[in-house]
Amino acid sequence: MTEKIIILKKRFGLVGDNFNKEKILKNLPGNYAIGHNRYSTTGSTTLRNVQPFFADTNAGGIGVAHNGNLTNAITLRKKLVEDGAIFYSTSDTETIVQLIAKSKRKKTIDKIVDALFQIQGGYALVMLTQKILIGVRDPFGIRPLVIGKLKNSYIFASETCALDIIGATFLREVENGEIVYVENNSLKSIKPFPLKKPRPCVFEYIYFSRPDSILNGKCVYEYRKDFGKELARESDVDADLIVPVPDSGNAAAIGYSQHVKKYFDLGLIRNHYVGRTFIEPVQKIRSLGVKLKLNANKSTIKNKKIVLIDDSLVRGTTCHKIVKMLYDSGAKEVHVRIASPEIKFPDFYGIDTPTKKELLAANKSNDEICKYINAKSLKFLSVDGMYRAMGFKKRNNTYPQLTDHYFTGDYPIKLIDNLGDDKVTQLSLLSTASNN
Amino acid sequence: MTEKIIILKKRFGLVGDNFNKEKILKNLPGNYAIGHNRYSTTGSTTLRNVQPFFADTNAGGIGVAHNGNLTNAITLRKKLVEDGAIFYSTSDTETIVQLIAKSKRKKTIDKIVDALFQIQGGYALVMLTQKILIGVRDPFGIRPLVIGKLKNSYIFASETCALDIIGATFLREVENGEIVYVENNSLKSIKPFPLKKPRPCVFEYIYFSRPDSILNGKCVYEYRKDFGKELARESDVDADLIVPVPDSGNAAAIGYSQHVKKYFDLGLIRNHYVGRTFIEPVQKIRSLGVKLKLNANKSTIKNKKIVLIDDSLVRGTTCHKIVKMLYDSGAKEVHVRIASPEIKFPDFYGIDTPTKKELLAANKSNDEICKYINAKSLKFLSVDGMYRAMGFKKRNNTYPQLTDHYFTGDYPIKLIDNLGDDKVTQLSLLSTASNN
Amino acid sequence: MTEKIIILKKRFGLVGDNFNKEKILKNLPGNYAIGHNRYSTTGSTTLRNVQPFFADTNAGGIGVAHNGNLTNAITLRKKLVEDGAIFYSTSDTETIVQLIAKSKRKKTIDKIVDALFQIQGGYALVMLTQKILIGVRDPFGIRPLVIGKLKNSYIFASETCALDIIGATFLREVENGEIVYVENNSLKSIKPFPLKKPRPCVFEYIYFSRPDSILNGKCVYEYRKDFGKELARESDVDADLIVPVPDSGNAAAIGYSQHVKKYFDLGLIRNHYVGRTFIEPVQKIRSLGVKLKLNANKSTIKNKKIVLIDDSLVRGTTCHKIVKMLYDSGAKEVHVRIASPEIKFPDFYGIDTPTKKELLAANKSNDEICKYINAKSLKFLSVDGMYRAMGFKKRNNTYPQLTDHYFTGDYPIKLIDNLGDDKVTQLSLLSTASNN
Amino acid sequence: MTEKIIILKKRFGLVGDNFNKEKILKNLPGNYAIGHNRYSTTGSTTLRNVQPFFADTNAGGIGVAHNGNLTNAITLRKKLVEDGAIFYSTSDTETIVQLIAKSKRKKTIDKIVDALFQIQGGYALVMLTQKILIGVRDPFGIRPLVIGKLKNSYIFASETCALDIIGATFLREVENGEIVYVENNSLKSIKPFPLKKPRPCVFEYIYFSRPDSILNGKCVYEYRKDFGKELARESDVDADLIVPVPDSGNAAAIGYSQHVKKYFDLGLIRNHYVGRTFIEPVQKIRSLGVKLKLNANKSTIKNKKIVLIDDSLVRGTTCHKIVKMLYDSGAKEVHVRIASPEIKFPDFYGIDTPTKKELLAANKSNDEICKYINAKSLKFLSVDGMYRAMGFKKRNNTYPQLTDHYFTGDYPIKLIDNLGDDKVTQLSLLSTASNN
Repeated sequence: MTEKIIILKKRFGLVGDNFNKEKILKNLPGNYAIGHNRYSTTGSTTLRNVQPFFADTNAGGIGVAHNGNLTNAITLRKKLVEDGAIFYSTSDTETIVQLIAKSKRKKTIDKIVDALFQIQGGYALVMLTQKILIGVRDPFGIRPLVIGKLKNSYIFASETCALDIIGATFLREVENGEIVYVENNSLKSIKPFPLKKPRPCVFEYIYFSRPDSILNGKCVYEYRKDFGKELARESDVDADLIVPVPDSGNAAAIGYSQHVKKYFDLGLIRNHYVGRTFIEPVQKIRSLGVKLKLNANKSTIKNKKIVLIDDSLVRGTTCHKIVKMLYDSGAKEVHVRIASPEIKFPDFYGIDTPTKKELLAANKSNDEICKYINAKSLKFLSVDGMYRAMGFKKRNNTYPQLTDHYFTGDYPIKLIDNLGDDKVTQLSLLSTASNN
Repeated sequence: MTEKIIILKKRFGLVGDNFNKEKILKNLPGNYAIGHNRYSTTGSTTLRNVQPFFADTNAGGIGVAHNGNLTNAITLRKKLVEDGAIFYSTSDTETIVQLIAKSKRKKTIDKIVDALFQIQGGYALVMLTQKILIGVRDPFGIRPLVIGKLKNSYIFASETCALDIIGATFLREVENGEIVYVENNSLKSIKPFPLKKPRPCVFEYIYFSRPDSILNGKCVYEYRKDFGKELARESDVDADLIVPVPDSGNAAAIGYSQHVKKYFDLGLIRNHYVGRTFIEPVQKIRSLGVKLKLNANKSTIKNKKIVLIDDSLVRGTTCHKIVKMLYDSGAKEVHVRIASPEIKFPDFYGIDTPTKKELLAANKSNDEICKYINAKSLKFLSVDGMYRAMGFKKRNNTYPQLTDHYFTGDYPIKLIDNLGDDKVTQLSLLSTASNN
Repeated sequence: MTEKIIILKKRFGLVGDNFNKEKILKNLPGNYAIGHNRYSTTGSTTLRNVQPFFADTNAGGIGVAHNGNLTNAITLRKKLVEDGAIFYSTSDTETIVQLIAKSKRKKTIDKIVDALFQIQGGYALVMLTQKILIGVRDPFGIRPLVIGKLKNSYIFASETCALDIIGATFLREVENGEIVYVENNSLKSIKPFPLKKPRPCVFEYIYFSRPDSILNGKCVYEYRKDFGKELARESDVDADLIVPVPDSGNAAAIGYSQHVKKYFDLGLIRNHYVGRTFIEPVQKIRSLGVKLKLNANKSTIKNKKIVLIDDSLVRGTTCHKIVKMLYDSGAKEVHVRIASPEIKFPDFYGIDTPTKKELLAANKSNDEICKYINAKSLKFLSVDGMYRAMGFKKRNNTYPQLTDHYFTGDYPIKLIDNLGDDKVTQLSLLSTASNN
Repeated sequence: MTEKIIILKKRFGLVGDNFNKEKILKNLPGNYAIGHNRYSTTGSTTLRNVQPFFADTNAGGIGVAHNGNLTNAITLRKKLVEDGAIFYSTSDTETIVQLIAKSKRKKTIDKIVDALFQIQGGYALVMLTQKILIGVRDPFGIRPLVIGKLKNSYIFASETCALDIIGATFLREVENGEIVYVENNSLKSIKPFPLKKPRPCVFEYIYFSRPDSILNGKCVYEYRKDFGKELARESDVDADLIVPVPDSGNAAAIGYSQHVKKYFDLGLIRNHYVGRTFIEPVQKIRSLGVKLKLNANKSTIKNKKIVLIDDSLVRGTTCHKIVKMLYDSGAKEVHVRIASPEIKFPDFYGIDTPTKKELLAANKSNDEICKYINAKSLKFLSVDGMYRAMGFKKRNNTYPQLTDHYFTGDYPIKLIDNLGDDKVTQLSLLSTASNN
C-alpha cells in the first residue's frame, strides 16, 4: 500500500498478555505506534472505553491515548452531543478526539491546539497521525511524559523504565504545557499555553512510578529512601527490626534503617503468584485477603520490636491485617511508620483513589487510626518533611512546587464537572452498562 | 432502574449461535428489542460494522438496524466528516445514524424524517428509542418489511416466516415509503415522501425470501412453482425425470413436473451438515466444492433423460459441477432449465451479487453458457414469462411493476456513489483493515 | 522421523467443525488415519469417551474406532478391572482395546481376533497400527462398513456417500464376520468366525443411512421410494396432495405419489439454519420445537386433503405438532402414512432409540396413536410389506433376513448386560460425572 | 448422592488461574480433595500428563498426585505394558497408579504399600480414595510433605506456607518413609520400609521452598540469611553496597550485609508484571531477557563498589547479563558471591535442572566462570560452609545428612532408568507428541 493507514487494536488486560505472539505483531506493520494500558477500576468494563481512540478527520486519521483525567469532560460532552456529535464510549479521551475532529483549523497540529485550549485537568497525551507522532503534557505537568531515543527513532513514554527495557536513551522530560512532535524524523516543540511553573503530582514519587524510573534527575527509589530517612528523623522509636510492607515500603524502610542504623529485615514474604492489589481487575480477587499475597516470616520476627514501614495509607484495610499477622506470628511490638502524609482528599487528575468517605485519614484522627490498625504507635511523614525529602526547604504555600491536594486539599485545577463532595467521578474511569 | 436504557450487543455469526443461552438472554431485559443478521461477504469483517448502530442524541438514545444498501452513503459521509463527525465504522447504516444525530428537529420521529429525506437506495429500517419502535421502508419498497402482532405487542420483521416461528399473527406489509411506529402500544403511520407506485425487488420472489414467507398475499413457494410452470410452458423438452437443484430449485421443479406431467425425483441429495453456500463466512469452506453439499442419487438417474431445474444462474460454477456429476453417475441427457431470466446486471440495493465481470449471462450468449456448463440444452425463463408467472400481463416498460435491473439494467434509483462500471461497491457490505 | 508414530486428536462436535483449518491438518501428517463421529446423546459428555481409543501394546500402538454397541461390555469390564486393568472412560470401545492389550498372541491381527471372540453385539470397527489398517464387521453384519479405493489407497467407511465426497471408487461391502486389512498396500481378508447368513439392520435402510448411499447394490433413496410404493399399495386414501415430512419422508412420499398418481408437494418447509434433531448436542435446542425447523406452506395446503408421509414414528411428538400445524394452516384432512412398521422394541446394537416406555407404538394401539396425533387416519407399513419392498417374498421367521427387532422383538444377539426391561443401557452411549 | 464419587478436573496453568470462579468450585462438592501443580518444562505439554491420576480399582477409585521423580519408572512401565496394561500418559505417576491397580491385596492401603515397595526415587505423594486421604514420603524424605490441621480437618501440603494461607495450624512434617492417612477423621501412621536416617534435599533450603515456609523447625528465610552470613565469613571483600539479585538473593544478601555491617540496597528493581523465570511456560517469554524482569537502579549504584549476591548459579546466563547491566549503569566494581556451592551434577529426584552440559560449574573453573560473567571477583559458599550454616559441624561423608548430589555427585538412590551420562531424563517431566 502506498498510502499509510492507521491500524487500531484494542484488548482487555495487560499489553504483555495480548501483544505477545509473533502472529499478532505481524498484523501490526509500520514504523510508529502508540499504545495504552490503564489500571482497571471497580465496575464493569467495555472494550469501547479501551484506548487509543481514533477519528477520521478531514485532515486525516488521528489516534489518541491519554494518561490522566479531564475535569470538564462531562460539561464539554453535553455541548457536543447537543450539536449532533455521536459518542461511542464514556471515556473523557473521546471528548478530546471529538474536539479535534470539530476544529475548523486546517493542520492537524492546529486542530490539536484548538482542542487543548478547551480541555482542563491532568493529562499526558500521545497521538499518531499518518504523518506525525505527538506528545503533550498539561500546563502544570501533573502527569509525567518523557522522551527517549533509540537509533534514529524518538519514543514517548510515561516513565523512563520503559526506555530501559527496549535499550533506548532517555533524552529529557516533556515540559509542562509543552507539545512535542516528530515530523520527518526530527523533534519539534511548541508551547501554546500561558507559561506556568511546573507542579508535578507528588503521588508519582510516593507510590505510582516504578522505583527504577527517573523523575527530575533522580531515581524514584532514591526519593523513596529519602522519604524514609526524613521519616526516621521525625519519628524514630526503640526497635529491633525495620520491616517493609513489601514491595511498596522497601525503599523507605531501607532509608529508615540506614538512618537509624538498625537491622532491615524481610519480616513479610511476598507471594509472587499474585499481582499488585491496585491493578487486579476483579473485586473478588482483591478481597481474597492479604494472606494470599503476604505471609509472616515467623522465625525472623518472633519476640522482636518491629518498625513496619509503608509508602502510604489509603483505606487502611491491608495495614490492619498485616499488623495482626505480625502479632499473631510472635512480634513483641509493631510500630507503624508511613513515608507520606495523611491522605485526606481524593484525586481527580487520573489516580484511582477511593472517595473521601473511604479515605481513612479523611475521617479519623491519628489516635483513631492507630487504634483501628491495632499498632503500638503510628506516625506519618509531615507535609514539610515530604518537601524536605524532595530537596525543597519547605512547602511554598502561595505557589506550591507540587500537586499535593491528597494531603492539603489544594487542587491546582478547578473541578468543573464536580457535582458535590463525593459525587465527583473521574469520567476516564467510568464504564457503562452497555458494551459491544 | 426507573429510566429506560438501551442495551447493545454485537456478535459475529448467526443469532441462534450467539443469543442462545439463558445466561445471555438474562442480560437483555426489557420489552422491546431490535436485531439484525447480515449474510457475510468476502473480505475481513469487523465487529464495528455489525448492526444495530447506536447514537446518544440530544433527544435520547436511538438504535438502528438496516436491511438494504444506500446509493449515496459515501457522498453523504464525506460531507459529514468535513463537518467534524467521527465515524466508527465503514457501514452505510452509520451514515443514517449520524444524520439523525445532526438533525436540529426536536422530536425523534422528525429527526428520522430529516435523515430519510437525505438518503437514497433500497432500505428497510427498524429503530428503537427509549420510547418508540419504528419501521421504515424505502419509497419504492425495494426491500421487504412486515408487521405482526403477538398478544398486545407489535413486531417488525423482514419476512412473515419470522412471525410464524414465534406464533405471531401477520397483520400487513409496511407500504413503500411508509414510516410505522409503535408508541404507547398503538401503531401509527406516516407517509412523508411523495407518493410512488411500489416496485419491490423481484429477487426476493426468485431466490432470497424463504419459501414459506408470504409476499403480496401468496406463499413465495407458490410463486416459485408458477415460475416453474411458466418455464415448462416456454421450453419443455422430452425427458424421463424432472430433477431440482436442491433446495433452491425444488418449488420450480415441482411446478414444472406438474405442468408437464412427468416424474419429479430427487436425483441429487443434499448433505445437511453443510449450510447454504451463500451464507458461509469463510471463503475456503465455500470452495470446498459441491461434493460436500450435493451427491448424485445414482440408481435413480442412471440411463435417464433429465431436466435439471434451478431458480437462477449467477456465476454458473455450481451448475457446471452438477451437470458433470449427473453425467458421471450415468444420466443419458441433462437439460438445464432456469426459472428466472439471464442475470446481466449487479445489484446495489442490498443483494450481494458478484460484479458484472463474474455474472455469466452478462458475458456469454446462451449457446456459450450451455457449452460451459456442458448441458444437452439450456433455457431461461423470459422476462415477460416472469411477469406472467407473477400475475401481470407483461412488463410495463414505462412504469415497471418490479425492481428487475438484474435482467433489464433498469435501476429505479440513481447510483450516486457509482465510480464507473465495476468499481461500484455496496458500502453496507464493506469492511476495513482495522478492527477492534 | 524414521519410526512411525500414531497421533491422536479428540474434539467435541462434528468433524467439519474441528478438523477444518490448514493449521490443524498440518499437525496431522501421515498416510493413514482413522476417525470417528458419534451422534450425541442425552446427559453430559466427556472428552475421555470420544473415539478413537488408543493403546500402546507390546506389539506396538493401536487405535480403535467403533460404530455400534457391545452387549457384554459391562460384564467383560468387571472382570478386567478385577485383574488390575485401569479404564479411563466409560465407553464399551475401551473394553475392546483392553482385551487387545491383554492378549498373549504375538501379532497384532491375532490379538484382535482374540479380543473379537470375547465381545458380543453389533459393531463395525476400524483400527490403525503403525503398520496396518483394519476393518471389521460383526458376525451378523448388523452395522455397515464399506471398502473404497482412491488411486492406490484403500478406504473404509460406514457409508458409500463418504467415498463419493472424496472421489473414491466403491469396491464392495465388508462381509458379515469378515476382517479386512491393508498391509503393504494390498488388501487381505480373513473370516475367523463360524459362518452365518448376513442379517443387516433394517433401520439403516429406513432411517439411518444417507439416501445417496448404496446398500446391497441399490441407493437407499430407491429402497425408501419402494417403502412408499408398498405403503401406497397397502393403504391408499382419497387425497389431493402427498406431502412429506421433510427431509426424512421425501423419498417415501415421492414413491407413494408416483404409485397413486397424485401431486407430490412440499406442504412443509424446512429451515436450513437448524440441523437434524437427532444430531443436536443440547437438549434445550432439541426442545425448541418443530416451529424453528418446519413451517407450513399456507397457500399450498389450504383446503386440501393431505396424505402426510414420514419414514418412521418413534415418540410421536413431532408428528403430533406437524399435524396440528397443517390443520392450523387450513388443511381439510390430514392422513398420516408411515413407511415402516410400528416400532415396539428398543435397540441395543448402536442405534440411540428411546426406552420402551417412550416408544409410542409399544404402548398404544393404532387407534390410540391416531387419536394422539390427531390425524384423520393413520397407517403403518406392514412387516411383510417392508420385506416385500426390499425384494424378499416375505419375512423368513426361522432365519430372518434382517435385524428387525424394532418391530418384532426378535433380537439376534443375547443382551448379556441386560438388567431388566428398561434398565438396559447402551454402554457406548454412557457418560460420567467426572471429566478431564 | 449416597455413594461417594471422585471428581477429577485437569487444567493447564496455575491453580489460581483455573479454580478461581464460584461456578467452577460449585462443581467440586465434597469434603476432601487433592490437587497438584507442576512447574512447566521445555517441550510440549499434554493434558493427559496433568496430575492427579486416577484409577478405578476393584477396591474402589483412587487418585494420586506426586511431587518428585521415580528413577525406575521406565523399567517398571515396560514390564507392565508387556503384561497388557494400557498407559494413557508418559508420566511416572501413572506407573504408581498401575502398580496399585495390579496389586492382589484387598485393602487399598495394602495395595499402596505393595506399589511403594516396587518404586524408587524421590517422592511425596498424596492420594484420595472414597474413604481415606493418604500422604507418603519416600524412605530418605527427599521431597518435603507436611501435615496441618484446620478445625477438625487434616491437610497435607508440600510446604507450611500453604497452611498459613488458609489459616491452618502446622502439626509436623511427614517423616521419611512414613505413610500417614486420615480415616474416620483420625490421623494414622505406618512405616513399612526398613528404617533410614532422613536425608532431605538441600535445594529446598537453597532455592525451591518459599522463604516463609518452615523446614526442620526454622523459616527457610533464616536458613538463607545464614547461608549469606557463612558466605560473608568465608569470602568478604571491600565494598560500598550489598546488592541482591531480587528476589532469590534477598535473604542471603541481608545476612551477608548484617555480618559485614555494610549497606544492603536494592540496586536492581524487579518488574512485577513478569513472573519467576523458572515457572514461565513459553520458551520465548523466558528468553525475552533479563531487562523485562530487572532494571538497574542507576542513582543508587553509580560509582559504587558492589557485592552482588544470589542463591545459586546454574547456567550463568542471567548473572552474566546482570553484571553487565550494573557496569553499564555506572558501578565501579561488581563482586559476585553465591550463597551455595558449585552445581556440578543434575538432579533426577524431581528438580528440573538442566543437563550436565549446561551446568556452568560442571564445565568451567572458578576463574573461567568469573571471566564469563565478567565480574571483578567470584566466590561460592563451600560445601562444609553450607553444612555449617545448616547447624552441622561439617558434612558426614559416610552418612551425609542431606541429599546434596548437586555439589558432590553423591546420589542417594540408584538411577535405574539411566541410559548414560546426559541421556537420563526425568520421566515425570516428559511430554509426548500426541495429545488429546
